[in-house]
Amino acid sequence: MTDERTLLEVPRSESLRLLASVPLGRLVFTHQALPAVRPVNHIVDDDKIVIGLTPGSAILGSTSLSGTVVAYEADSIDLETRQGWTVIVVGIARLESEAAAIRYRAKLHPWLAGAMTDILSISSEIVTGYRLIPATARSG
Amino acid sequence: MTDERTLLEVPRSESLRLLASVPLGRLVFTHQALPAVRPVNHIVDDDKIVIGLTPGSAILGSTSLSGTVVAYEADSIDLETRQGWTVIVVGIARLESEAAAIRYRAKLHPWLAGAMTDILSISSEIVTGYRLIPATARSG
Repeated sequence: MTDERTLLEVPRSESLRLLASVPLGRLVFTHQALPAVRPVNHIVDDDKIVIGLTPGSAILGSTSLSGTVVAYEADSIDLETRQGWTVIVVGIARLESEAAAIRYRAKLHPWLAGAMTDILSISSEIVTGYRLIPATARSG
Repeated sequence: MTDERTLLEVPRSESLRLLASVPLGRLVFTHQALPAVRPVNHIVDDDKIVIGLTPGSAILGSTSLSGTVVAYEADSIDLETRQGWTVIVVGIARLESEAAAIRYRAKLHPWLAGAMTDILSISSEIVTGYRLIPATARSG
């Protein structure tokens, strides 16, 4: 029972810092009225989550996502120690202008081969972060 | 550019095997008409994804999820080698009967402290799996 974990809520600013510390997260959206999720690379810029859509992620349909509410999740959980964190952002996805896209393309390094066509940003309307910590911190 | 990756589709049976090989995934659902996502522990049983809801995950509202279409995502991606896999299942969430729940509670080992109240299973209607592999497998 000492393996049990509990969730400790993390403030917004720390949550965004944790999110920025990893290169990979999961975009959660609605596709043909069904819940959908895809791993993507991200950066955090001025409280926005910025992702680049490559041909490999074309299934996302960037234009259909723009203006919709999406969620973004990233976590770093050690399967051995069962400790780590998870951050969930809910916000509005927007297709960035070509001027902004040029700037972000230089910063983003998506792992998938192929030119980044569109740059999508997600506003951080609701930020929820948790750390997974031992349920009884005092016990050995 | 040799760091670039491409996606190789994985068959259904292998995808479910990969999913079963890890203890943790992400439940993607609709909460108050908004996309939502939460990390949870799972097992795979007879092509169903089975998760236990603890008080710590009460935000999920198991009864409101039952009968709805949800997605489930798990991945194992090495940030150093940039290789790994991701599996996404779309299916219908169902609250398991108390008889089945008793059986699953003995198999499930959720990390969060607190009694598991409800057991939710997700049918694997649509299973999509990808391996992240080097874009140019022949290049050094």
